Amino acid sequence: MSWTIDAADVPDLARGAAVLGTGGGGDPYIGALLARQAVTEHGPVTVVSTDEVPDDALGIVVAMMGAPTVMVEKLPGLAEVAAAVAAVGRNLGRPVSHVLCAEVGGVNSTIPIAAAAALGLPLVDGDGMGRAFPELQMVIPTLYGITAAPMAFADEKGNTGVVQTIDNTWAERILRVALVEMGCEIMIAGFAMTGVQVREALVPGTLSRATAIGRGIREARAAKLDPVAATVAALGGRELFAGKVSDVERGTTTGFARGRATVVTDGGTGVLSFQNEHLLATLDDQVLVTAPDLVIVLEQDSGEPITTESLRYGQRVRVLSAPADERWHSPEGLAMVGPAYFGYDVPPRRFDGTVEDGSGEAVAHAAGPVGA
Amino acid sequence: MSWTIDAADVPDLARGAAVLGTGGGGDPYIGALLARQAVTEHGPVTVVSTDEVPDDALGIVVAMMGAPTVMVEKLPGLAEVAAAVAAVGRNLGRPVSHVLCAEVGGVNSTIPIAAAAALGLPLVDGDGMGRAFPELQMVIPTLYGITAAPMAFADEKGNTGVVQTIDNTWAERILRVALVEMGCEIMIAGFAMTGVQVREALVPGTLSRATAIGRGIREARAAKLDPVAATVAALGGRELFAGKVSDVERGTTTGFARGRATVVTDGGTGVLSFQNEHLLATLDDQVLVTAPDLVIVLEQDSGEPITTESLRYGQRVRVLSAPADERWHSPEGLAMVGPAYFGYDVPPRRFDGTVEDGSGEAVAHAAGPVGA
Repeated sequence: MSWTIDAADVPDLARGAAVLGTGGGGDPYIGALLARQAVTEHGPVTVVSTDEVPDDALGIVVAMMGAPTVMVEKLPGLAEVAAAVAAVGRNLGRPVSHVLCAEVGGVNSTIPIAAAAALGLPLVDGDGMGRAFPELQMVIPTLYGITAAPMAFADEKGNTGVVQTIDNTWAERILRVALVEMGCEIMIAGFAMTGVQVREALVPGTLSRATAIGRGIREARAAKLDPVAATVAALGGRELFAGKVSDVERGTTTGFARGRATVVTDGGTGVLSFQNEHLLATLDDQVLVTAPDLVIVLEQDSGEPITTESLRYGQRVRVLSAPADERWHSPEGLAMVGPAYFGYDVPPRRFDGTVEDGSGEAVAHAAGPVGA
Repeated sequence: MSWTIDAADVPDLARGAAVLGTGGGGDPYIGALLARQAVTEHGPVTVVSTDEVPDDALGIVVAMMGAPTVMVEKLPGLAEVAAAVAAVGRNLGRPVSHVLCAEVGGVNSTIPIAAAAALGLPLVDGDGMGRAFPELQMVIPTLYGITAAPMAFADEKGNTGVVQTIDNTWAERILRVALVEMGCEIMIAGFAMTGVQVREALVPGTLSRATAIGRGIREARAAKLDPVAATVAALGGRELFAGKVSDVERGTTTGFARGRATVVTDGGTGVLSFQNEHLLATLDDQVLVTAPDLVIVLEQDSGEPITTESLRYGQRVRVLSAPADERWHSPEGLAMVGPAYFGYDVPPRRFDGTVEDGSGEAVAHAAGPVGA
């Protein structure tokens, strides 16, 4: 069932997307600003469910790639988004019919709204992760053999390009070093998919879900209820710990915002390790949950999601975990986004604390590139 | 007047190109190997003078970009060259009609021979520098406003791409970081030019000149004459000093082979500073000559050119200087490739020791990109 996003809908969606974005994907305020501006200028965006995408559609993932810490100072522009989409469409020799989201997160759920508004295209209710992750290849479409390439990029100076890489990890590697040279922020367009592939490889319904979560936080607050408890219920997750941020170490290295935050709680010392997104939560050195499941940090009273780049000493936070899409729990999924990949020498743990057994839903590797 | 290059012609051309390449452009032996192999397999290459290129031709510069020190271990492949040329042709929507050389140097004069052989296209007798320089934008076509973009690249793994940059320096910046990620060696194709632009912006006759210099060294040696003196005469240059290499400092940083070599001579201590190419020669701290004029190092007896990456302790060398194309001596040329650009805080000096006055031949900035 299709629905529309107008300027008034954006704040709930951006807030909920920042919750599912596990601290990554950029500042939800900036993302909302960009989307509201585009929707106000170009009119509401039609959002279609994955079921409504025609089999022969050409969907293109549109995203910002870079360090979210930079985005706070340099607002992404719609011209770059349009340049990247146009470049990939020219390369494929077919008009793009649908805009897709790579991830759910503060900016990468709202930039596609802005792109869809500016391009006059429908946006698909879904995304490539069901959460946010820091690297380009870390999407469920990669597990299905869908290629990032042809992958177009554009910076705010007017530089553009299209890479045709041998796999999605090489697209990440080449664009990551290029974006650092270009100022740590580029717009990308790629992961071309037919409607059949959209249904197979995206996590469906995540924009609806983000909107419901964001609305739930706002409504709980208005009704003087606990917005964090409402979020835990909506996520089907659990609360890990609550306390005060006592230390944040961070550095923007090789295009990522990496670091760790310490939270003093009544029950011990919690630590959150992040690389754009929160990837690991421990309490007194005991691992509670790891990627691919979600580690979410909310402001204690307001329930507003706190991004990794806005974590500060003295903040009162509540830390939640929630389950990821089951395909991330397959052996291939864990190899791509489990704690070992990010350099944490611990076994993966699900949101409820159980150790992973790689029993997640298996994926087929049948799909190929569009037009190949 | 057109001529052909067959396998027997390659060694003289490669040797002479390495002389004009001022120590850069890679190992002439490897360059010759690649060109001989391609010419043997695909047949001789027709070389046409710049005057013979039709006005509406589409000439494309083909080159290896990266650190020559890496090339010694990883031979460039023809498949990458073909992939890069094909990508730029597809981007322009027109078939490439002529292969052009970016520079004269061990590898970048012979890779275009191999490319022309493999693609069955004529090669133009000329190049973009009249020597070798370390960065992509450092060609006389840049002074004429000819754009590097669309610039295609390909690595030996099968990754390719096309960048459309706002200027030639941005093509250098983006491809330089990308090539380091890809293993310090990529093939590039770009600087699309019409025949009119070829005549205006290339240094004409440099392949003929390289062949004559290379043949002159070989013949002088066979006749028991001094091959170094023969080279000085052919270049219209002068001998700066001769002696024994006593020290070489080097490092491959940010994709370049940078360093300095000390030469003990009867008349003092000579120092050669290089960044892929020799850029500065001093004797007892007195600057003798700087880029853009040529600093050339030949083996004392054989007259064989010595590349910066093959400079070794104990080598007996003779160091020459020779004049560059007059357009490099214009204010714009000196700003692009004078000693200040390379971080040497000295005024530019011509091959004969005179301080530069920016009086070189001016260039017009009229040209635009092909198809723009």
